[in-house]
This record gives sequence, C-alpha cells and structure tokens, in this order.
Amino acid sequence: MTVQVKSGPWEREVFLAKLRAIGVSRYHDKHPFHRYMNSGQLTPDQLRGWVANRFYYQKNIPIKDAAIISNCPIREVRRLWLHRVSDHDGISEGEGGIEAWLKLADAVGLTHAELLNEVHVLPGVRFAVDAYVDFARTKPWPLAIASSLTELFAPDLMQERLRAFEQFYTWIAPEGLEYFRSRIVQARVDSDQGLNLTMHYCDTYQMQEAALRALAFKCDVLWAMLDAMFLAYGEGIEYAGRQLAYITVAHES
Amino acid sequence: MTVQVKSGPWEREVFLAKLRAIGVSRYHDKHPFHRYMNSGQLTPDQLRGWVANRFYYQKNIPIKDAAIISNCPIREVRRLWLHRVSDHDGISEGEGGIEAWLKLADAVGLTHAELLNEVHVLPGVRFAVDAYVDFARTKPWPLAIASSLTELFAPDLMQERLRAFEQFYTWIAPEGLEYFRSRIVQARVDSDQGLNLTMHYCDTYQMQEAALRALAFKCDVLWAMLDAMFLAYGEGIEYAGRQLAYITVAHES
Repeated sequence: MTVQVKSGPWEREVFLAKLRAIGVSRYHDKHPFHRYMNSGQLTPDQLRGWVANRFYYQKNIPIKDAAIISNCPIREVRRLWLHRVSDHDGISEGEGGIEAWLKLADAVGLTHAELLNEVHVLPGVRFAVDAYVDFARTKPWPLAIASSLTELFAPDLMQERLRAFEQFYTWIAPEGLEYFRSRIVQARVDSDQGLNLTMHYCDTYQMQEAALRALAFKCDVLWAMLDAMFLAYGEGIEYAGRQLAYITVAHES
Repeated sequence: MTVQVKSGPWEREVFLAKLRAIGVSRYHDKHPFHRYMNSGQLTPDQLRGWVANRFYYQKNIPIKDAAIISNCPIREVRRLWLHRVSDHDGISEGEGGIEAWLKLADAVGLTHAELLNEVHVLPGVRFAVDAYVDFARTKPWPLAIASSLTELFAPDLMQERLRAFEQFYTWIAPEGLEYFRSRIVQARVDSDQGLNLTMHYCDTYQMQEAALRALAFKCDVLWAMLDAMFLAYGEGIEYAGRQLAYITVAHES
C-alpha cells in the first residue's frame, strides 16, 4: 500500500510568485523577434509580417473569450468576462480592438483584405493560435482564465513596444499605434480581474498546479508564433532563444 | 445579377497531377532538417530530438484514423480504413508501428518513458500534430483521407532515410530501423488506397479543390514540425527553406 499525501493549496502569495516566475522564464518579451523589434532593427517587411500574423491572434481573442463564457456556469464570472468580447469586437461598427489593429495595418501599408483573408498567416502561427482557442473550448474554464494571465506581463512589453515604434519606426503614422496605447491601460485592469478569478476558483493544489501549466502553455503559444515569424521573415535576426531550455535530451553517445 | 459558371470536376489524370505537384513543392523531404539528416550531418542529440518529437506524431496516427472512421457513414470505406489503426496500435502487446518506433528509441538511447510522457515534445510540434488530429475530427472524412496522401511521397523519403541511417549513423543498431523498412512497403499500399478513395469521393470541382487544400495543409503540418525541431536542435544547420514562398508581403516602403 502506498501512503497518499494530500497537499493543501499554496498561500496566495506563493501561488502568485509561481505564476510570475513563469512569465519571467517563458513570456515572449525575450524572444529574439521581439528584442529586435524593440531595439528598432526590424525592416518594414519584417514588421508587416508581424502585423499580419499577429492579427490572426487578435481576431481569435473574442472567439476564445466567448468559449470561456460558454463553458462557465457562474453568472457573476460570465458578467465579469463579457466586456472582453466587446472590447475586441467593438459595440458598433468601426470600434474595438480588432478595428484598431486594422488601423495599424493601414499605417504599415497592408490592406484590410490581406489581414481579413489571412493571406500572410503562417502555418505555425495558425496552429499555435488554434491550439489556444481549442484550449479555451475544451478545458475547465478556470484554467482557460489562468491561461489568459500572460496579460500580467503585457503592459511592460506594450510600453516598450510603443516607445520603440515612436522612436525607430517613424514611417508608421502615430494613429496606427492606438491599439497599443489602449491596451496598456486595459491589460492592467483585465489581468487584475483574471488574477482574482484564478486565485478564487483555482483553490486546490491540483487546480493551482493545472493553472501554472495553463499559463506556461499560453506562453508557449505566443513564443511559437514568433518562432514561425522568425523563420519566415527573420533574415538578419540572430536566434539564440529560450528553446535551449527544451533540450533535455542529454546522453553519453 | 452575376452569371454563375459551374465547373465540372477535373479528369482523373489532371487531379492526380495537381495532387503530386503539391508534394513536389511542399513535402517535408526538402526541409533542411531532413536534408541534413539524410546526408549524415545530424549529431546524436539532434537525431534523438527528432525521434522523440516525431513519436508524438506517430502516437497520434491511430487516433486520427479512428476519427476518420468515426466520421464516415460508408461501411466499405470504414472497413478499408480500419487496418491503419491496428497497423500502428498492433493487434497484440508488443506489435505495431508505435511499438516499432519505441524500438528505434531504444536504439538511439531514449527511454520509453521519455517518449510516452512527452518530455521532449516541443510546443510547435504539439500544435502541428494536434491541428492534424483536429482536422480529421472536424472536416468531412473524404478531405481527411485526402490529407493523408502525403503517403504518396513517403516511400522515397523513407528509402533515402533508411540508406542514410545504415551508412552514416552506424551507432544505431539495425533492429531500430524496422519501422522504416516496414513502412516503405505499407505506405505504397496505403497511399494507393487513399488515392482511390480520394478520386472516388472527391468527385466535384469543389471537393477536388478542397482535397488539394487538405493535402497542402498536411504538408504544412509536417513542415512546421521540422521547423520547431530546427529551432530547438538545429545548431549547425543552415536554414534556407521553403518558407520564402510564404513571403508575399511586398511593398514599396
């Protein structure tokens, strides 16, 4: 007979520290594509490739959030989560985050049709984003909420990006950058909310562990998107990224 | 009012030529990771990374084929397709393609636990394989069958791989290569069958077009898997691959 040791949940501060540690090691701010973007070294075509591919992620966010709502039996949580859908879809024609991203497309010289018809979307980007939507559709909703906590790390990256665009990519009209400006504020509000819900509903050791894995998975989604863009558009970018952490194959050969 | 032009289906030979043309331009035999593998230039750790990651694809094949069967209302087709599941799962303990791949793992010095517990599976590989299983689960079954037609191009690659392993990677015991030997024969049988079913059930212009897209999608799955491995394990491999075809962003900037 084996002795079963039951673990209680971590204290709030411990759990929070573990969530933050995942961001430190896995968030895509450290990806070479982002580092080159934020130090002003991307060419216009490389930036366009990123704008077009990242749009596939943006357009799927409300679909992902509606899936979370659809899976959640708790009305208060659904109410809290609902604004995310309209934040991206807008309340009326011409509003919302997706529309703001299309203005970024205008500013870099891509047509709306190119983005909406997904003509530049790389297979690796599509697979990663689709995996994220599938996660929200099929996993317990508190874990789908936990996977959204990359928002904890987004404002710093967004701030850095905005500064980089204003300083280095002056060929992009400032009105194209509205999405980043608005998200710096909104991501803080949203991540506070997501964090409170995660703390409240991931209240066993098992769920806390699963929440950490969900956040790591989401970091992998964002990282894999940039990997695909790096391979397709990354000429001149040196790759020496986080993937070394994956190489656990070590043998005397 | 617009005039609707209805197209009839392509002749068998035309459709076949179009399917083969997709293999010529998109099959992963041209990926640098494969080119380096088949010219004997991979290190033992690079080969192990490939064996461990490709196993995630192998273990999902019977799941994918069972999904096709589960979606197909035609008993004759189901009967024809069923052996694929047992080919990989085996009829009894210790048999089948997955077991043969575990013997390859033995031969390169990976443990079964490493493969079965997915410890080396890269996110990009997981996303691509999961997209393939999802395709089989959610698309019309004749298109899922069409997506399997990468088997048309597999025997040549497998033959080349077997020769390369025997010539260059002599540290791998020959009994580890049984999977490749058996697939060279079986893939020809299976692809003939898949081709006949595709010809028969993709019998409108619309379905033929969709079958071409399904095969291209499947080529992208295989290619994206190697992209992920290239980034994780590819030190010393020069990447100058097919991805250039994706760069359709071209602007006067």
